[in-house]
Amino acid sequence: MNHHHHHHHHPYKVLSDDDIDFFIRAIGAENVAQTVVTKRNEKKKKKTPYVPESDNDDNNSNDNKSEDEVLLIELNTDWQKKYFGKSKCALFPRTSEEVSEILRYCHENHIAVCPQGGNTGLVGGAVPVFDEVILSLKRMNSVLSIDDITGVCVCEAGVVLEELDDALMRRGMCVPLDLGAKGKCQIGGNVSTNAGGLRLVKYGSLRGTVLGLEVVLADGTVLSSLLRENRKDNTGYDLKQLFIGAEGTLGIVTKVAILASRAPEARIVTIFACDTFRKVVHLMVEVKKRLAENLSAVEFFDHESLKLTVDTLPGAKDPFPYADDLKTNIQFYVAVETTVNEKAMESRLRANVLNFARSVCVLAEDGRKSRGKFVSILQKKFRGDEAERNKPNLAQRFVISENEKHANELWNLRERISVALKYAGAVYKYDVSLPTIKMYELVERMRERFAERRMDDKVKVLGYGHLGDGNLHLNISRKEGPCKDTLAMIEPFVYEYVTEHKGSVSAEHGLGAMKVQELWRGKDAEEVRLMQRVKNMFDPRGILNPHKMIPSSSPPLPSKL
Amino acid sequence: MNHHHHHHHHPYKVLSDDDIDFFIRAIGAENVAQTVVTKRNEKKKKKTPYVPESDNDDNNSNDNKSEDEVLLIELNTDWQKKYFGKSKCALFPRTSEEVSEILRYCHENHIAVCPQGGNTGLVGGAVPVFDEVILSLKRMNSVLSIDDITGVCVCEAGVVLEELDDALMRRGMCVPLDLGAKGKCQIGGNVSTNAGGLRLVKYGSLRGTVLGLEVVLADGTVLSSLLRENRKDNTGYDLKQLFIGAEGTLGIVTKVAILASRAPEARIVTIFACDTFRKVVHLMVEVKKRLAENLSAVEFFDHESLKLTVDTLPGAKDPFPYADDLKTNIQFYVAVETTVNEKAMESRLRANVLNFARSVCVLAEDGRKSRGKFVSILQKKFRGDEAERNKPNLAQRFVISENEKHANELWNLRERISVALKYAGAVYKYDVSLPTIKMYELVERMRERFAERRMDDKVKVLGYGHLGDGNLHLNISRKEGPCKDTLAMIEPFVYEYVTEHKGSVSAEHGLGAMKVQELWRGKDAEEVRLMQRVKNMFDPRGILNPHKMIPSSSPPLPSKL
Repeated sequence: MNHHHHHHHHPYKVLSDDDIDFFIRAIGAENVAQTVVTKRNEKKKKKTPYVPESDNDDNNSNDNKSEDEVLLIELNTDWQKKYFGKSKCALFPRTSEEVSEILRYCHENHIAVCPQGGNTGLVGGAVPVFDEVILSLKRMNSVLSIDDITGVCVCEAGVVLEELDDALMRRGMCVPLDLGAKGKCQIGGNVSTNAGGLRLVKYGSLRGTVLGLEVVLADGTVLSSLLRENRKDNTGYDLKQLFIGAEGTLGIVTKVAILASRAPEARIVTIFACDTFRKVVHLMVEVKKRLAENLSAVEFFDHESLKLTVDTLPGAKDPFPYADDLKTNIQFYVAVETTVNEKAMESRLRANVLNFARSVCVLAEDGRKSRGKFVSILQKKFRGDEAERNKPNLAQRFVISENEKHANELWNLRERISVALKYAGAVYKYDVSLPTIKMYELVERMRERFAERRMDDKVKVLGYGHLGDGNLHLNISRKEGPCKDTLAMIEPFVYEYVTEHKGSVSAEHGLGAMKVQELWRGKDAEEVRLMQRVKNMFDPRGILNPHKMIPSSSPPLPSKL
Repeated sequence: MNHHHHHHHHPYKVLSDDDIDFFIRAIGAENVAQTVVTKRNEKKKKKTPYVPESDNDDNNSNDNKSEDEVLLIELNTDWQKKYFGKSKCALFPRTSEEVSEILRYCHENHIAVCPQGGNTGLVGGAVPVFDEVILSLKRMNSVLSIDDITGVCVCEAGVVLEELDDALMRRGMCVPLDLGAKGKCQIGGNVSTNAGGLRLVKYGSLRGTVLGLEVVLADGTVLSSLLRENRKDNTGYDLKQLFIGAEGTLGIVTKVAILASRAPEARIVTIFACDTFRKVVHLMVEVKKRLAENLSAVEFFDHESLKLTVDTLPGAKDPFPYADDLKTNIQFYVAVETTVNEKAMESRLRANVLNFARSVCVLAEDGRKSRGKFVSILQKKFRGDEAERNKPNLAQRFVISENEKHANELWNLRERISVALKYAGAVYKYDVSLPTIKMYELVERMRERFAERRMDDKVKVLGYGHLGDGNLHLNISRKEGPCKDTLAMIEPFVYEYVTEHKGSVSAEHGLGAMKVQELWRGKDAEEVRLMQRVKNMFDPRGILNPHKMIPSSSPPLPSKL
């Protein structure tokens, strides 16, 4: 047996012809992509090159590559093109039994496996670190059942989030989760990374809405009785929770039972402009109190984020183009999404939101159509009013969506910041939890650090995120591309700062390959050691997504070898 | 070393004078109650007998008992007086360090421990099965912090739920959990049993709202870094989930960080009367759709439940006293609780609810003051209306609360059924999840079984529960007291029926001592074995709450002995 010794501690077998033969027998040649057996692969070469799904613009050399080679390059690369694996084999099982058969074989033969969903993660969790076999869930993409009465939906792990949402929408329901990556990410990956996203404020975490999972363990055992559809079940330990957010290191999620929500029939998006972060936070508290019943998201972004989006994305417009004329000092934007289940209630919601917005705002709304005039009239009216002078003045101005198209336009200013960042050069992304009131200080400290070293002309430091959940996305964008000195200014400073303030170094993105060693921060060694013991109990040979999430603890070589 | 061999498999040490001495040194004599060392105990005898908290009416013989003897009788007995332990020692630590010191000692000396919160459980989970040392959390009852901005509250495990709620209420917030036992149960016990209760529809499960825990493991290790206060944290496995609902078998919860909710300023309770269970379910679906934004609970109870409550509890009144006159055939009641955060919005909510209720109802509401007249007028009006004839007619009638006092009166008809049952004789209680649409069939099948054997004159079969969560409370009440033949008619039939219909044999009450062996039902052996391995990993000597929840699997005797 050949072994490939990485600088990590589990020895894994290097794939041989026999292994490929086994996989082909188990799931069919059409579900195996590989570059191990060259002769077999030659036959599959196409006249016209395979066009991969992602927008590779540097793949001109693919003409000489086999279909499988091209596919493997794609599957070995994360969407940010920061992480590159060297896997020579990708498997596309179609059933849980096939997943089980693959894992049993890999377990017996010490073959490392990297489970892959939509490959939209940000921390390198879904691509191999070395030559792990890629086990893609993409061909397990059926919605199995939707219960109109209870709202429970059962589906396979490879269903794309947006497709699941579409299936539910046809029944008046929706997935209790919304992410920017919804068009590509898969529900199994969402569960395995405990995805948070934009509407946690409304739906709560997946730990509450995922009712059951089918999981295949490292040794091929299928845990099918975990796939419960009951809203409540207090019999024994809730083992499924271990697999939620485990990034595929404890088992492979093959089916998901999730509690869908009623789809709202109307939504209203309001953007507030604030001058200080303290006001941003207090505005959020007021929003949660006074718009609670209809609140589905309360997000924020800073002026630097808006500027980058408006400068980078065609169609993105500053919602407050006249703000400068009015000598306001707008530094922050709070995006509030409110919804109603029944279209008939929309006008009442609009009245509520408008009433709320006026009560916390110095100036008036920026009406889209009658902007200049509208503002100046309301401005006068508000300034003359006694009550107005005593109101909290949490925001400088606001704009409220007039219709669904306008709501989308406004919402995109927040949702598409990450897309703008992708087009604006290299970007260092951090996703942290911090005490809400102090959350933005990290962004300011980071800007200071760059200014102190006179590096601030090369980088843009952006702060935005899930205000309602105390979750900050800190992004450092560098137009000229990645740079070691820039990274050295950020890390480990960010992690130290967050740990010192009792935050989380990964609020929702997970640890993946990027932050494995950060697990030790902010946790007692006892807690990490317990995690290692859990990992070892479920996957004693460490074949599942190695080098991810849980730092390895040098267990001895298996005695069989 | 003396060992007490139970018919279970872990051997535990019988307490000696030395053990008591250790406990007294560790936490102080005033925090140890014991009947092991007779001489020491004699000194503590009081002239006047100790009055226990619970309403023991058969404790006249306490005159001759020491204070500790009386206290131990109380702590060994569950509130239903169905489970009786024989513990000779109860400890009342005041800090996590004291809990740690106790457990380290018990672990080293193979002493079994039964953690106890408010002792309000229904399945015998909180009292010893044999002579386990009782570790009561009642003296760890401080609220440590409340964050007005994030709503995160940190407190010790022994805080009584209602006291925690009061502390939060003073800040405009509330606990995201509501139980009938709130005046006595403790938050640590709620977490350890993953309590559900009446408002799960609004707040979701504790698995989403509990943000962090401090837990002391069997060997005394204090897991303090689990006590996180971040809304989101995706670093590593979410180990705290294992302790939620573990009934104290994996560790002792000593502190809890929980996300409080904004307290509503007004509520409206509506009771609908329905003739079939199918309509009950469809009414629930409509309620969830059309009152979603304000919905905090949607419960149901059957006519048998109402009759028992009205007959048993003074002050409980039939909300539809004229129903018979109108020749309606009312079999079920749906209780809908709606709330608003702001008092100013109450009248608007009332209009909404009224509008909804009228749109699904055959007849009109039972106004309290103008009942007879009001009904007959609206009845005429409704009958003449074309639209009325086409409406879904999900309910026969409804009554809507006029004020908070009336809301309480109506809500108590649902909430106090279990109190009525307690006063009405022996009761066999079952708490199951079933597919909502078929949920009530179990109650009907049970009645048939008693009728077939002509035992139906001796028992009342009641069905009520958390309609919105698919959670049925099946109760069989027997005025003449407990009876073996009655029990034989119920079990194992109930468990078999539920398992066959893919339900859960314990939706929210847990397994405790009552249902340990039921864990095997509805779960694959692999799942139960994984639970056993988790138990063994956290508590290798099985000292924590033995004979509860997880069936023991005959591990070998520890080699040290």
